[in-house]
Amino acid sequence: MRRLALVIACLVGMSAPAFGQKAEIEAANAKWIEFFNKGDFAGIASLYTADATAFPPGSAMVHGNTAIGEMWKSAAEKVGDPKLTTLDVKPLGPSAAREIGTFSLKTKGPDPKDVTGKYVVVWEKDGNSWKLATDIWNDGM
Amino acid sequence: MRRLALVIACLVGMSAPAFGQKAEIEAANAKWIEFFNKGDFAGIASLYTADATAFPPGSAMVHGNTAIGEMWKSAAEKVGDPKLTTLDVKPLGPSAAREIGTFSLKTKGPDPKDVTGKYVVVWEKDGNSWKLATDIWNDGM
Repeated sequence: MRRLALVIACLVGMSAPAFGQKAEIEAANAKWIEFFNKGDFAGIASLYTADATAFPPGSAMVHGNTAIGEMWKSAAEKVGDPKLTTLDVKPLGPSAAREIGTFSLKTKGPDPKDVTGKYVVVWEKDGNSWKLATDIWNDGM
Repeated sequence: MRRLALVIACLVGMSAPAFGQKAEIEAANAKWIEFFNKGDFAGIASLYTADATAFPPGSAMVHGNTAIGEMWKSAAEKVGDPKLTTLDVKPLGPSAAREIGTFSLKTKGPDPKDVTGKYVVVWEKDGNSWKLATDIWNDGM
């Protein structure tokens, strides 16, 4: 019985924080968009874990939230109006979750184009906040 | 004290399966390569969870391990000699892990080219086996 109680206690402890994960992650994504549109790339950096990794198509991995903020600052010279749609959030233990979604944005310049794609983010709980820990995307949806 | 014992028991229970995850995931990747090189796409499908999602650049998400096996069968008409290098495996709770790695492959045809890129896989423990649950990659490394 004590063993069963332990198992139940572990399961409850593990699943309780999962409640509301999708809403919390969508709220973090809304902040990401707000920061991007304001040009607040330190704000964007603050949404990633300190040791996060981003995987921009066509170039090298970017390690660390400060470098990731700089990456988005450079990207914002070429693209704008980002939109994110969360399709699925799967809890992975008490302090991690996997998000699947789609994105759209517009290229800047004389001949602007719509770009659409899909992404996978692994989120980690950092104190009370969900933060992006890996962020990878590619075109096509 | 009982509370402390519970916390310790939960932590031990959660971290114990993490031991050896990287080696097990590298072994699954070696099987992936072996199946691909043999043209055994049912074998490749068996390495993914039933509800896995793959994210091929330039086209739509592919849902389910059977469809993912078919996707790789089609891909094998155009590319070969895949290689995978695991850079990091991070345990996410008792039955999930996030892998970061790089890949290379060669295009087929009269003017074969080397293609290199990077990937993120979320692995899930399915019975005694680690299986790919999300598999996303893009070019550049």
